[in-house]
This record gives sequence, structure tokens and C-alpha cells, in this order.
Amino acid sequence: MNGARSLVHTLRAAGIELCFANPGTSEMHFVAALDETDGIQSVLGLQENVVTGMADGYYRIAGIPACTLLHCGPGLANGLGNLHNARRARSGIVNVVGDQATHHRPLDAPLTADTDSLARTVSSWVRTSSDARHVGHDAAAAVQAARTKPGQIATLILPSDVSWNEGGVVAEVLRSPAPPPVDPFAIQKVAQTLRCGSRVLILLDGQGTGARSQKLAWRIAKATDASVMVSYGVSHFPRGRDSIPLERIPYVSAQATQVLSEFEHIVLVNSSAPVSFFAHPGRPSTLYRPETQVHVLTRFDQDSDEALQALADELGAREVGFPNVGPRPVPASGAPTPEGLAQTIAALMPDNAIVSDESVSYGRSFYQYTHAAAPHEWLHLTGGAIGDGLPVATGAAIGAGRRRRVISLQADGSAMYSLQSLWTQARERLPITTVLLNNRKYSILIEEYKNVGAKLGTTAMNMLDLGNPSLDWVKIANGLGVEAAKATNLEQLADLLNQSFKDPGPFLIELMV
Amino acid sequence: MNGARSLVHTLRAAGIELCFANPGTSEMHFVAALDETDGIQSVLGLQENVVTGMADGYYRIAGIPACTLLHCGPGLANGLGNLHNARRARSGIVNVVGDQATHHRPLDAPLTADTDSLARTVSSWVRTSSDARHVGHDAAAAVQAARTKPGQIATLILPSDVSWNEGGVVAEVLRSPAPPPVDPFAIQKVAQTLRCGSRVLILLDGQGTGARSQKLAWRIAKATDASVMVSYGVSHFPRGRDSIPLERIPYVSAQATQVLSEFEHIVLVNSSAPVSFFAHPGRPSTLYRPETQVHVLTRFDQDSDEALQALADELGAREVGFPNVGPRPVPASGAPTPEGLAQTIAALMPDNAIVSDESVSYGRSFYQYTHAAAPHEWLHLTGGAIGDGLPVATGAAIGAGRRRRVISLQADGSAMYSLQSLWTQARERLPITTVLLNNRKYSILIEEYKNVGAKLGTTAMNMLDLGNPSLDWVKIANGLGVEAAKATNLEQLADLLNQSFKDPGPFLIELMV
Repeated sequence: MNGARSLVHTLRAAGIELCFANPGTSEMHFVAALDETDGIQSVLGLQENVVTGMADGYYRIAGIPACTLLHCGPGLANGLGNLHNARRARSGIVNVVGDQATHHRPLDAPLTADTDSLARTVSSWVRTSSDARHVGHDAAAAVQAARTKPGQIATLILPSDVSWNEGGVVAEVLRSPAPPPVDPFAIQKVAQTLRCGSRVLILLDGQGTGARSQKLAWRIAKATDASVMVSYGVSHFPRGRDSIPLERIPYVSAQATQVLSEFEHIVLVNSSAPVSFFAHPGRPSTLYRPETQVHVLTRFDQDSDEALQALADELGAREVGFPNVGPRPVPASGAPTPEGLAQTIAALMPDNAIVSDESVSYGRSFYQYTHAAAPHEWLHLTGGAIGDGLPVATGAAIGAGRRRRVISLQADGSAMYSLQSLWTQARERLPITTVLLNNRKYSILIEEYKNVGAKLGTTAMNMLDLGNPSLDWVKIANGLGVEAAKATNLEQLADLLNQSFKDPGPFLIELMV
Repeated sequence: MNGARSLVHTLRAAGIELCFANPGTSEMHFVAALDETDGIQSVLGLQENVVTGMADGYYRIAGIPACTLLHCGPGLANGLGNLHNARRARSGIVNVVGDQATHHRPLDAPLTADTDSLARTVSSWVRTSSDARHVGHDAAAAVQAARTKPGQIATLILPSDVSWNEGGVVAEVLRSPAPPPVDPFAIQKVAQTLRCGSRVLILLDGQGTGARSQKLAWRIAKATDASVMVSYGVSHFPRGRDSIPLERIPYVSAQATQVLSEFEHIVLVNSSAPVSFFAHPGRPSTLYRPETQVHVLTRFDQDSDEALQALADELGAREVGFPNVGPRPVPASGAPTPEGLAQTIAALMPDNAIVSDESVSYGRSFYQYTHAAAPHEWLHLTGGAIGDGLPVATGAAIGAGRRRRVISLQADGSAMYSLQSLWTQARERLPITTVLLNNRKYSILIEEYKNVGAKLGTTAMNMLDLGNPSLDWVKIANGLGVEAAKATNLEQLADLLNQSFKDPGPFLIELMV
């Protein structure tokens, strides 16, 4: 058995079911091994940032790592943007990166690059396989790392001779380590704060935003008069009528500072202390008051369900009913607005939909209008590297077994980063409705530019404007194999949404905003 | 003056005239400084690999570095593929990469990444500016590095506070070092080899492929019965009726080995000893015979014109006339073939055209049919990281002052990597004719897969085929603002080429092959 076969069989035995791929010459033995092995499905992306973004979306929904197949250093480099986001989402991914044969590398052939250094910038685990006899074991270790809770990026660099040489051995599955235990002292300290302290915020992220932790946090908050919020860049968040109506920390730092100014204590549940996305001259980098005390209940890798249960018990917090989120919204009408869009989507989304949200500045207020929607899961841009919305939607649809509708809320500037995703959506006939928010500019940057206090001259506007020429997203989508239509008001949007929800394949609605 | 202004004024003083940009929040002070400064033109790309590829194409034609403006680590990461190619092309580029403010970085806000490590994988020079007072000097040093012959990638990382703080000082221009002198001993040794040795190949690359070196090498070859070829991945190569009809070393290693087997000596002129692009099982990595002697006349950073002149003098090689390249070709007809396409383009291309060639497997035989074309310059994919053809064409058109027709020969799979380039071509009204070779598959990989000896099953074909759904490049181009039409035979191609050459703007011809 050659190295490539031992690698594929080991991945399969360790529970990998999906390979998101854009292979090259040095990966042909791996492709051949995939071809002859049942149980790992391959999905092609036409650029690597699509491939890695799909793997991120898949993990957020399926909860098990996929592998990616990437070609040499530059292929990995093309996919680093969405690996950055996946790292921030703490998604588990096993990257398999083909590389020059070990004896060929010193010759510095054109595609030779510093693959190891590139991989280290985003990976928790990196190894270059050096021998066909070891690659099975290396693959088992990679999956072990990727499955380490909450999820890690593991990158296995695979020289082509290690792939084609004989001597491969299928390795046994390596168990991932248990999460670090919950700290009883932290529970005591937080309980004391909640008993005595006034104005406490419980801030959720990661597992802490899951259904059970949400409800426990809510119960604790009701018993102690605390508040509950979630981080701005939460990776996947169950919401809607069966969930607690929680808001995110706002993106705009002045608003976040305002919201957080009322709290004397912040309790972190798998979250980090809130800091602004970027620094601004003369403004503080942290978003809470200097005198606010920050308490860590659980770190990102600890079990928030267990810690919150223990905290609720310690506080004797009683079961509480769900807050009333009001009636299910009705579709809005007229010219598109952020509120109207959110309301229309909340009104029409099917049960258990998945929302992939890269609406950027347009979508900052969506939460308040969607609490009463059907139960759904909301996925955000975790790391701020734009271009994750479309591939995350694509991977999420596959992660959900193609059985849940994905609604992809997508700003135009960001969509241009990974528009190749639409082709994979068409090829795989995925149930994805993209709402493409065409505002013909980088709105977020125009806003930031104005903050600098400079006047918006021709050169600056030339770097922030997408309107010359206008992108025609219906044509672009059609060219990539996806049906599409334009909507200029919310009634048209509602009709197109309803129509697309009936079709099992992808559809793109270009909403002129 | 703030840091950003001192940076922009220093770049301008050091001769930078172009900024290829995709800015983000942390670069707004730099954008404002560009806005108020005359003499640096800004060109927007809608994804960073377009931005860096344009800078590469610009340098290859203009011969002076442009700067790029990239957003944080992930923005740089998105542009690394074409920086890899630019590094192989030895193009001079000054990357300005915005980053978190120095005091904000330790807080690990979402977009924080290991920008320095990412930059080092492709750059000859990297510096993080730490103070507004020093950024002018840092910029001068960056341009000095980028201008060091033949050209280098210099990356200046610019924390946002260094940009907005006052105290900036415009720095004086720093002269780039002179190239290392030509080695008289090497000239003697090569002269002796050429006098005595039989079967000598003079292999040109870099400056060695330029007009003067070509003619000198030809004169030497005629005097000594040697042969002359150019490297496979030559960055820019003057060709056509006023040049020597030289062939490249073939890509396919069996062919290259065959071609090189006749030589006992290889003389390197700014080139490297030929090695195969990838290793293959049981085949040697070097393409020449083990007993062939390799002689370095000039390294990549030495002056090939001077060395070849000295060599010609040493050998007493007389001036020789140009070889007869035959009549100018006439357009071919019928179904598209590589030969027919090359012949048609050779027949119709205007004087001083620039060819950006990412035709990959389809275009390997183009040279032999284009020696008798009008004088032109041919640009290749230097580093093998696909997705450089369209952005290099875009940057080249700007580097030529929009006064030369660019013909972009582009394979479909590679085009999908950086199709956003078409939008910039439309926005800037650039004289670019793209011939999009739509074969609906990754041909080069299918060829390589067959070499592995495996049968092409469903899974493998699924990873190598682009035909389901078919990409419609006319729609894609139109959606991005570029006029386009389909051609299914060479007569239609000829008509569309002629039509596009009359229009100053871009045009895309989807050639079904």
C-alpha cells in the first residue's frame, strides 16, 4: 500500500467523511487513493479560499472535521484567509497540503515555497510527513488535533514521494484529549460576584452560545438580575423561537462602549474580554470601563454546559420560562432597508434554516428583528477576513446533509472575494438562497474614512467605490451556473425567497440596496 | 505631518507612480494621504491576488516598482499566490500592509494575524514600522530594496498608529546597490568551453532574455556552433520579427530531457540549471544528463549584457545577421487547435503587443508559430501558482501607459482564480483582449493523473472536471463589466480579435476548445 492509500484509509477510519479539494499535480496519488476508497466524498472548489471556507462551514454545522486537499505552498496561501476565519471560529479542519518530493525540494523548482511557515500562521498542529511508513500515523495525529475541543486546524504537509512510495500503514484512531476540567474556584468566585455584585454581564461565545448554555445562562441571569449577551463574531448560534433572544456586542466601538458602560462585572463563558475590532486615535482599545472587573468562568476549551449547570446549582437558580419573543414577523414591504430585510427573512425562513451572514455593515441590526423567527442557526464572519460568507454557506449546506435551507446574506464587496463558491453550489445542487446586497461600494470603509476626518476626494472614492462599472450579479451567478433574479423592493424579495425555498437547488437574489 | 503622509511623499519622491490597492479600515489614513498627494495613481482590485498580480505585470513592463496597499495579515495572505509568482519573476514591488495599532496588537482582536511570518515567505525585505518618525525612512529603504536589480519584493508593515501619529519625516531617496560585477574568470572559463567543447547550450533567463543579450548570445552561438534557449518560466521576453527565434525548455519533463540530452555543457546566463517542475517516481529531477557540465556565466543579479559582450569580444565573435523567420503568418481557419490559435494571433497582433500567457497546457507549442509575428513581448507564469494571467495582463496594460495592446491567453481553470481582474480592466478601460480557452477541465491534471497509472474513476474525474455546470464566460465577463463574445472556430476568433484591437477598452473572447 502506498503512502496516499494509507493516508486516505486512516482519515476514513478516524471519521473523516468529506474532502474539500482543489488538487494539483503533486496530489495525484492522493486523488487516485480517494477515487478507489468509499466513504469519503469529494467536493471541488475552484479556488482554495472557497475550499477552506467550505471546510469551516461544514465543521460549524456537522461538528466533525473535513479534510481539505490543497496544492503546494501557494495553494495553501490562497486558502489562508478563510483558515484565519476558521481558526477564529475554532473549527476543526485537517488540511492535506501536497508538496514537492523530499529529494526535489532542494532544487527550488518554481512552485517550491515555505509551506511550513505558511501553515504555522493559522494551524494549531503542523507536520511534514517524511516517510510513507509514517504518513498513516501522521494522519491519525492530525485528526486527533483537529478533533481536540472545541476544534483546531491541523495541517499535514505531504511530499509527493511520501504519497507514492510503498510501505504505508493504516494507523489506529487516536483519541482526542478530554477538555480541561471546569474550575470549582472560578464557579465559586463568579457565584459570589453574581450574589453581591450589581450590573453583571454574562458574555457567551463558542459552546457557551449553544442551546443548553444559553438556557442555563438565562436562568442564572433571571435569578441574579444579570444580563446575557454574545460576542460579536460568534461562529454558530442557535436562535429563533426556541432560543433566548440575545444580542451581540455591537461592532461599532462607540456603541459597544455605550452598551458595556453599565456593567461593573463581565463573566466570560468561553468568550474573550471585548476589545474593539480596530484601534482608533485617542480611543481605548477595550470596550468596557477601566474599573470593570472581568471574571473567567470557562476558557474556550472548557465545558460551558457543565460550568453553567454548576453555577446555577450553586446559586439555587430556579428553572424559568422562555421570554416571550412576540408573534412571528410578517414580511415587510417597500424599498429595502436593513430592518425590512431582516423582518422579511424572519417571516419566511423555513424551520431549521441556517443563516450564513456576511452582510457586513448592512446587517448589524438584523438580530432584533429575527428573535421571533422559526428556529434557526446563525453563522458569522468570525475573523474579519472578508470572503467567508459564500463558502461557509456552501460547506454548511453539505454539513447539514443538504437537508436544511441555507440563507446566505452577502455584501457585494465581500462576495467578490470568493464568488467561485456559486459554481460549487450549482454543481452540488445545494439548497442555498443567496441574498446579494448590492450597494456598489465598500460601505464599511466609507464610514471608517469619514472617521479619519478627511474629505472624500476622487482618489479615495476610487478606492472605496464598486459602482464603476456596476457588478451585475444575475449575470455573474448565471455564468457560474446558478439561477438568479434581481429584486428592487421587499415584495419582490419575498416572492423570490418563497420561490427559492421550494427548489432544492441554489438561487441568488440580487437585492439593490 | 502624520506617518501616512510622510510615507506617501517618500514613495513619490523615490519614483513610485502607481498604487494597486485593496484597502481596509486600518489603512484609511494612508488612503487619505494618497487622496491629497499628486503623482501616485491608485488602481483598485477586488481581491488581493488581483492587486499583487497587477503589481507584478506592471513591473515586468514599466521596469519600476509599484506599491500595493493590502489590509492586515489576511489581506496579505490573499495576495501571496501572485507574490510567489512575482518573486519568481524577480519583479520589484513595495507592499504596504496595514496592521493593528502597536498598542492594540497584544489584545488579539479578530483580524490580528502573524503578518510578519506571512510576509517573509515571499519577500526579500520585511520591516514593521514602529514609529511615525521612522516610517519615511522605512519607506525609502523599502523602495531601495524593491529597486535592487533585477527586482525584489519589499514588504513594509504599517501599524495604524504609526500611520496616524504626527512626527512623520519625508526621507531622502536611498540608492540601490550596483549589481555584483561580472566575473572575468567565468567569462574565460565559458569562452574556453565554447572554443573546445562541443554541444553547448546557452540558457537565457531574466535580463539575459532581453533584446541586447539575445542578440549577443546569438552572435556567440553562430561563432561557436552553440545553441541558445530560454528557461521555461521566463518573466518577460521580447519576441517576434526583430528578435531571435528562441525556444523555451519544454514543460513536460520527458520532452525537456530529450531536448537537453544532446548537450555536454550548459552555460547559464541569469538562469538556473533546468529541473523538472515536479518530481515523478523513478525519474530524475534534473533535466540534463548527469555528465553534462553546468557553467555559470552570470547569476540572476549580474549584468548579462556586459558579460555576453565581453564573451563575444573574447571569442572574436563577429556580428551576424538576423535569422530569417519567414513570412508573417496568415490567420488559420476551422476548428480551434493550439497551432491554429497561435498562428491566428501571430497574424493579427498589432506592433508592440504584450502577450500575457496563462494558457497552461494548451499553449505549450505557441512559440514556434509566433516567431514571425510583429515585434511583441511575451509574459509567462513564472512561479506556477495559477491565477496570474489576468492580473498580470491588467498591470502590464497600465505599465505600458495603456498605449500597447495586451493579449491575454487564458486557460479557464486558472482564470477562475482571479476573474475579478476583469472588473479592473473595465473600470480602467484598459486595451486588453482576453482569449479565454474554455476546455471545461483541468487538462494538465488529467494528463498528470494518467501518468500515475490509475484509472480515472468518478471521484477523480469529479475533482478534475469543470464541465458540470459549464462556466459561461461571456456572462461572467458581462457581469463584471467587460464586453465579450463566444467563438467556436478560428474565423470567428479572427473577426473578434480584429474588432477588439480597434476598441481602446477590454474585450473577452470565449474560445471553445
